[in-house]
Amino acid sequence: MTKEKASVLIETAMGRSDADLVIRNAEVVDVYSRSSFRADVYIKDGSIVGFDGDRKAKAEHDAKGKFLIPGFIDAHCHIESSHLSPAEFSDTVVPCGTTTVIADPHEICNVCGLDGLDYMLKASEDIPLSVFLMFPSCVPATPFEHSGAVLEAGDIGKYIDNPRILGLGEMMNYPGVVSGDQKVIDKLGEAYRTGKNIDGHAPSITGQGLDGYIAAGITTDHECETPQELQEKVRKGMYVMLRQGTACRNVLQLLPGVNEGNWRRILFCTDDRQPQTISEEGAVNYGVSLAIRNGLDPFTAIAAATLNAAECYGLKDRGAISPGKKADFFLTSSISGGIAPDEVFIDGVLVAADGKILEKAVHTEPVNVRGRMDVKGFSKASLSCKPGSDHVRVIDIIPGGVVTGAGEAFIKRDESGEWIHEDGKDILKLAVIERHHGTGNSAVALIRGYGMRHGAVATSIAHDSHNIIVIGDNDDDMAAAVEKLISIGGGITMFKDGRELGTHVLEIAGLMTDDTAENVVKCLAAMHETAENELHVSKEIDPFMTLCFMALPVIPSYKLTDCGLFDVRSFQFVSNAL
Amino acid sequence: MTKEKASVLIETAMGRSDADLVIRNAEVVDVYSRSSFRADVYIKDGSIVGFDGDRKAKAEHDAKGKFLIPGFIDAHCHIESSHLSPAEFSDTVVPCGTTTVIADPHEICNVCGLDGLDYMLKASEDIPLSVFLMFPSCVPATPFEHSGAVLEAGDIGKYIDNPRILGLGEMMNYPGVVSGDQKVIDKLGEAYRTGKNIDGHAPSITGQGLDGYIAAGITTDHECETPQELQEKVRKGMYVMLRQGTACRNVLQLLPGVNEGNWRRILFCTDDRQPQTISEEGAVNYGVSLAIRNGLDPFTAIAAATLNAAECYGLKDRGAISPGKKADFFLTSSISGGIAPDEVFIDGVLVAADGKILEKAVHTEPVNVRGRMDVKGFSKASLSCKPGSDHVRVIDIIPGGVVTGAGEAFIKRDESGEWIHEDGKDILKLAVIERHHGTGNSAVALIRGYGMRHGAVATSIAHDSHNIIVIGDNDDDMAAAVEKLISIGGGITMFKDGRELGTHVLEIAGLMTDDTAENVVKCLAAMHETAENELHVSKEIDPFMTLCFMALPVIPSYKLTDCGLFDVRSFQFVSNAL
Repeated sequence: MTKEKASVLIETAMGRSDADLVIRNAEVVDVYSRSSFRADVYIKDGSIVGFDGDRKAKAEHDAKGKFLIPGFIDAHCHIESSHLSPAEFSDTVVPCGTTTVIADPHEICNVCGLDGLDYMLKASEDIPLSVFLMFPSCVPATPFEHSGAVLEAGDIGKYIDNPRILGLGEMMNYPGVVSGDQKVIDKLGEAYRTGKNIDGHAPSITGQGLDGYIAAGITTDHECETPQELQEKVRKGMYVMLRQGTACRNVLQLLPGVNEGNWRRILFCTDDRQPQTISEEGAVNYGVSLAIRNGLDPFTAIAAATLNAAECYGLKDRGAISPGKKADFFLTSSISGGIAPDEVFIDGVLVAADGKILEKAVHTEPVNVRGRMDVKGFSKASLSCKPGSDHVRVIDIIPGGVVTGAGEAFIKRDESGEWIHEDGKDILKLAVIERHHGTGNSAVALIRGYGMRHGAVATSIAHDSHNIIVIGDNDDDMAAAVEKLISIGGGITMFKDGRELGTHVLEIAGLMTDDTAENVVKCLAAMHETAENELHVSKEIDPFMTLCFMALPVIPSYKLTDCGLFDVRSFQFVSNAL
Repeated sequence: MTKEKASVLIETAMGRSDADLVIRNAEVVDVYSRSSFRADVYIKDGSIVGFDGDRKAKAEHDAKGKFLIPGFIDAHCHIESSHLSPAEFSDTVVPCGTTTVIADPHEICNVCGLDGLDYMLKASEDIPLSVFLMFPSCVPATPFEHSGAVLEAGDIGKYIDNPRILGLGEMMNYPGVVSGDQKVIDKLGEAYRTGKNIDGHAPSITGQGLDGYIAAGITTDHECETPQELQEKVRKGMYVMLRQGTACRNVLQLLPGVNEGNWRRILFCTDDRQPQTISEEGAVNYGVSLAIRNGLDPFTAIAAATLNAAECYGLKDRGAISPGKKADFFLTSSISGGIAPDEVFIDGVLVAADGKILEKAVHTEPVNVRGRMDVKGFSKASLSCKPGSDHVRVIDIIPGGVVTGAGEAFIKRDESGEWIHEDGKDILKLAVIERHHGTGNSAVALIRGYGMRHGAVATSIAHDSHNIIVIGDNDDDMAAAVEKLISIGGGITMFKDGRELGTHVLEIAGLMTDDTAENVVKCLAAMHETAENELHVSKEIDPFMTLCFMALPVIPSYKLTDCGLFDVRSFQFVSNAL
């Protein structure tokens, strides 16, 4: 708020000057009282000024008795997971009723460091969606891989005073926190100094360890998996998020833990939603709707997705429909069976109707984040796999999650010791190629359960360091896929017998594209079909997302980084040979 | 939080170093979930580190199953109303379970300006009670009187960044806000600039005017009088306080307005509690208890008095019992019939037991605020009352409140036109003498309903400018009382036939004393007895508090300032003669 704006709002509230807009006959959802009331809502200069009363407005919009609901706040998401630029992401989620997101740009920062953060700040500055960022706390996620950047406390210090940065992003380094690692404490210290939030990431952390983690000032968690865990975390002071992403879907698991006592500490988030998921289901409104359809009081669900998030992150200018608040809201006919906005308003301007954005957001040129592909010395020879034994470790894909099994198998090798692919055995080769610093680093391992019979799939999305990951039965297709990604600056591609079967270009850091959501969804749908029909990837898994998580060395059991095969259970590298 | 402290808390939470204290077998009240749970609570360096687990502690305290409740936060009070210095106030309210107060020092600032603020900050810095201040927004309260100081936006700017100043105090100038008065907007601007709170003061303000007031960024109100008003204010975004002071007692009035939907926006406060009231009833715990005894769920009442207030004022380090929070709490056997603490802990140290403080707080020398009595040219002649007519206006005291009636009467005058006191008519003379700047200003009027037959009562507490106010039937006693106050630097005194019947010395700004609460209560009790028995002041009114409010020109109908008789209804001065 500024003095000038306050003066204007007061003048308008008191009826001495005209409002810009009045929404007539609205059933306003009051999240402060978990109820609703019928009113005309007056808006001036993008803010709500009051209800009913003796006022005039330059324009009016008849809500015809529809519910008028504060815009939803997605309390934790990674925009990169949508594959879309912030502008295109805005055009995609705003029609779903999301008007504010709190985004952790740790994917792009793992690739581009502060250039990635600068891009996300700039590209999300002048779009309808309000984007607040959390400074990524764990770049790289682990010391067991090469990421594009290393962000330290000093970097945080340079950015955290920015009013659009609300604190420190998900602190995945739980061991570092509870062991009191000084480098971690130094990062937390920047949040202490500024009084800003620290988001948590505490899957299955309970009891004494949770006490230590919370004592460090960490105030949210979006990794809860059971009602008991939710209740303990709320009891100990955390805001707990009901997450409904593409892969991780916790709303129904957690709902039994939410009650009349603790609902005020519950938020909704999407974390990671793929473009197709947003297109098919919606954004954070999907999780809210799911909760309502499964018994959560609609007013409580709406308050959690608005006021609770605003309170948690200190966003005093939004989260409710009341005088002085930002006029971000939507109209919808019903709230009892789930929530699908008919018309969405941002700053008091109609921006979306019937699920479509009315005017495209302005895109920002992705300078310094385009085509981040510094791969040196890669050739087919880099894919050589000579385990040194017929008895080997294999990464066992487990459908429906990102955990893998620590498998073993007996394989065939040629006279030079090279692994030989065997039809019908469903064992393939997996390789990770470092792409950030031209180190020439790469590593190979064997993987089971992908289903593909012949060909190769490669992607530059490989959490969290986002090196190139490629899977295949033969080195020619694998090398061609890798070379393709290098040439286009990243994306997802599939090859078979030297033929390119389909490519999804992700020219922004190898993670996102400035293309339209429509094209992205169309392209990915076609590629999914091809992966299933031509490559015969198992129907039980997503061919691309599964691959994305095979390099994440924080989730058990075996994962492959550019440094080698990693056993997450013992936190050490292991050989392919057993 | 600091990095060093975080490291210590983590070490202790994880059991690698010993806690300072463990409270065993506590029934911990969980305000996040409105429930309780049995646990051992570990404390280190004044903060809670966790529950149960594998830890050791240097000392232990057996709670024997008692409830362990976060220390109460009094969301709005004027310490000056207790007549006590901050140290003595701390010793008085802490045993009642109040561990944090948000105080508006506008009484002392009306007398001493920024010297008063400096004193309150310093005197409350190193005492067990946490005292946060709101910068007084309305000094003076009106332009119709002479106060000791005028505080402008520039003064606010110098202080508002102080972390112990949480924002702007009760904005009593409602007309100034909704008319957009630039001087008022400039004051609000300091809160906008820093993102700090602005407390409201909006008695009976509803509808469009309330919209305008809230659009200006005002977020609390403690002047609500009906459940409907409460519900409208919450709906429009305010935190509403259930106030239980000495004179203003709104808890029972407002309770029907509090429900399962809106309780999270409800706070408790005392506003103005006289020393005897605290001594007899308690502090903010009294209002909480009253609410519980009248049907409010105890967990809801406790959450309102703790977490809600902490959230409202952004006090992230307190308001709940969870890891990292300040170890301010108390133990009590029962919560269902009201709340009386057995043992109170601050920063994890036992500071009060069975209603008594264990160690006296350290007092601060009241420099620059002592004996503020700059009265020039006062004599008996200053009290002359010559209305110019037998038909006069009289201030009609209405028992039970601070509103007065606009009375009229026929009086007797001597040959010089001087008013003559008539026995049995209960009309007395009231005078206000400016005491801050030696202006020589004084004014007289007639008042009815005080009951006193003969003598004079004077006090230097006279809201909000705190000039000297004196009531009496004869000028000799009145003058003697005024002279007495001048000589001692302020207080309350009674004279009859030239004899001093009793004096309560308030040497700090004429409002407070550094004496003990015990002595203050004893002195006031004796004075009340004398006022009733020797002066025959009406039993329906408090002889001193009634007087204190007769100079407050914001509450109808007639009030007397040092500038003359004021008709609050028409907002203008009027003559004594009709």
